[in-house]
Amino acid sequence: MNIQEQISQMGERARRAARVLSREDTSVKNRALLAMADALERNTDSLMVENSRDLEAGRKQGLAEAMLERLTLTPERIAQMAEGVRQIVALPDPVGTITGLAYQPSGIQLGKMRVPIGVIGMIYESRPNVTIDAAALCLKSGNAVILRGGSEAQNSNRALADCVREGLKQVGLPEDVVQMVATTDREAVSAMLTLPQYIDVIIPRGGKGLIERVISEARMPVIKHLDGVCHVYIDDKADLDKARRIAINAKTQRYGVCNAMETLLVHQAVADKILPTLAADFAEKGVELRGCEQTCALLGKSVIPATEDDWYAEYLGPVLAIRILADMDAAIDHIERYGSHHTDTIVTEDLGRARRFLREVDSASVMVNASTRFADGFEYGLGAEIGISTDKIHARGPVGLEGLTTEKFVVFGDGHIRQ
Amino acid sequence: MNIQEQISQMGERARRAARVLSREDTSVKNRALLAMADALERNTDSLMVENSRDLEAGRKQGLAEAMLERLTLTPERIAQMAEGVRQIVALPDPVGTITGLAYQPSGIQLGKMRVPIGVIGMIYESRPNVTIDAAALCLKSGNAVILRGGSEAQNSNRALADCVREGLKQVGLPEDVVQMVATTDREAVSAMLTLPQYIDVIIPRGGKGLIERVISEARMPVIKHLDGVCHVYIDDKADLDKARRIAINAKTQRYGVCNAMETLLVHQAVADKILPTLAADFAEKGVELRGCEQTCALLGKSVIPATEDDWYAEYLGPVLAIRILADMDAAIDHIERYGSHHTDTIVTEDLGRARRFLREVDSASVMVNASTRFADGFEYGLGAEIGISTDKIHARGPVGLEGLTTEKFVVFGDGHIRQ
Repeated sequence: MNIQEQISQMGERARRAARVLSREDTSVKNRALLAMADALERNTDSLMVENSRDLEAGRKQGLAEAMLERLTLTPERIAQMAEGVRQIVALPDPVGTITGLAYQPSGIQLGKMRVPIGVIGMIYESRPNVTIDAAALCLKSGNAVILRGGSEAQNSNRALADCVREGLKQVGLPEDVVQMVATTDREAVSAMLTLPQYIDVIIPRGGKGLIERVISEARMPVIKHLDGVCHVYIDDKADLDKARRIAINAKTQRYGVCNAMETLLVHQAVADKILPTLAADFAEKGVELRGCEQTCALLGKSVIPATEDDWYAEYLGPVLAIRILADMDAAIDHIERYGSHHTDTIVTEDLGRARRFLREVDSASVMVNASTRFADGFEYGLGAEIGISTDKIHARGPVGLEGLTTEKFVVFGDGHIRQ
Repeated sequence: MNIQEQISQMGERARRAARVLSREDTSVKNRALLAMADALERNTDSLMVENSRDLEAGRKQGLAEAMLERLTLTPERIAQMAEGVRQIVALPDPVGTITGLAYQPSGIQLGKMRVPIGVIGMIYESRPNVTIDAAALCLKSGNAVILRGGSEAQNSNRALADCVREGLKQVGLPEDVVQMVATTDREAVSAMLTLPQYIDVIIPRGGKGLIERVISEARMPVIKHLDGVCHVYIDDKADLDKARRIAINAKTQRYGVCNAMETLLVHQAVADKILPTLAADFAEKGVELRGCEQTCALLGKSVIPATEDDWYAEYLGPVLAIRILADMDAAIDHIERYGSHHTDTIVTEDLGRARRFLREVDSASVMVNASTRFADGFEYGLGAEIGISTDKIHARGPVGLEGLTTEKFVVFGDGHIRQ
């Protein structure tokens, strides 16, 4: 059996499992999640063994230290995964909720019911905890999932998926609700992307190369984010203490994350009041600054001249681009032109400016006087996230249980016919 | 300038116009709509002249009578279009609505704001009224739109788009909010489908060939429906009078529409009580019946044996497939296997069956004791529809103003940073 056929059969099994799962009560799904969490903790030793095989192979292949670090499981990390699963148990089940049920002029009663999407295809790299997050979120939202992790984590992922399937089996749910693609052949990814009859939505998580490949090959909708080029705009009506606090936090609280600030925009009227202080703060933290002409003139040799490429750059590290602009309109223009529609913040005390910024900036998250780092499933109260979307439709921003569901119209009549 | 460049420039203009439109108040958009409606009525004579050019060309090309009929404008039809636009004025503006604004544990205040999608690409055939419906719905929902109508209606569509742009101009909105592709070259469609940087969503309306081409070429999300293979399932717990009324209405109230019933499913326990009556009803209306073996055995020569293809068929005419099944589970299996996830109805007085059917049938509209013909934007109170979606995500079923918008997260802080 070739890979296309293998994946196709997994798809068929997922479709069948999804139908069974879609009608299960919340309590059954919750019991499966608790059994999964227990299985993770019970199998800590064997998970560590499998993980050490991946780590050994990774070292032989010369994986970077940072990659190995992300790949590593410890008893603490396994306990955290189990705890994460238990938190998902506590979240309300969105499936089956009917909203807006109302009589129409014809006498029919019309509402919308929230339902699972069906079968999710998850393609990801590196961090093995994605296996557990994805399985738990898909299960709770009533979806079957086909997981395709990176080859560097194959043994860890397989062992984690076994714990998940153990949990499903214990409560009598079909194990095919969660399936792991066995082969590490890249062809398996192409096979997944060309089976819209079995996989309703693809969620890729990983490097830009992976995401771009998925976008170009997928024959079904993709929920994804490509870049996180996030901005903080400091308005001339800003409280400069808040501005300083937010800029530092947005850039330096963590570097390698998609919701970190990459470009700081400053109104020209306050540039000389705030930038020298901020430059000193950033220097202390070891952040390299790249500025527009005006910024360079103001800050001197502590800043490198920025090129056009810097405005597009997602550094994911201790580098920051800075631009001084004439006014808020110029800042919004900059964000629309160079941004990635992920998360953008204005710092201002002016209500009119805040209102306009919120309405006019077309990003998944738009903020007033808050750090871009808040754009996160946990901070947003979603409980957990399967990813962050910068797409325009369906789910934007952190994607939790609701983003893994959709709505259908439901109609109640009593023999009603159309006139 | 080649076609790719032309469409690309239209895209750039649309993007700019969309940004201007997105910040306009509802009253400005409503005044533009009223001006559009007036322009349509004022220009009735010249619209008729342009339409007669299309009709003449169509006759020369040997277009079918039904096509010519759909293409024809009359003063009454123009008045209806204007009236449709005025009805859209009366609909509430979804743009800017913030829902769920609530404090999070960190102290930030989080909500979701409904916003326009941006730029819609509309590719359609035949009926010129789609030009007006699409323009009016996109305008009200704050989106720019690039229209590409069929070559058979090019003069009518251009004249209609001129009325729209006249309305925009009168209130000072950018005319590029609504643009019509001038060339009838098929290459223009390909150009539209490969410009995701300018066109956020494509909505195709027309024959299956058009829709399939759009799906395979589009590099952006598509809102579409391919088929309307709608079912009515008559349960053994059905009130047979209601069942008869609903089956007749769903099949015969109009034939060429996507929400008409194409297959009737009947529980074996009531087949001999309802089918002979229904067969006589359908015979009287001139509907050809194609049945499964049991149906043929029951109804004799008044029914033609159905083949496997009949269960997949969207007849869009006076033909109906009939299948007798063991129980509701078999009916749901049939719908999931052969249906198009458009609209499906159960006729039953049994609450448990109704509950299960509603939950388990995975279609855009699922109904109890009501005709499939209700699946329609007007009947659903959306005021108007730009199309019907059988996609799984974003918008399912009739797509009105809400389906032309999306949501973004908005966050209010007061200098909040992430710990």
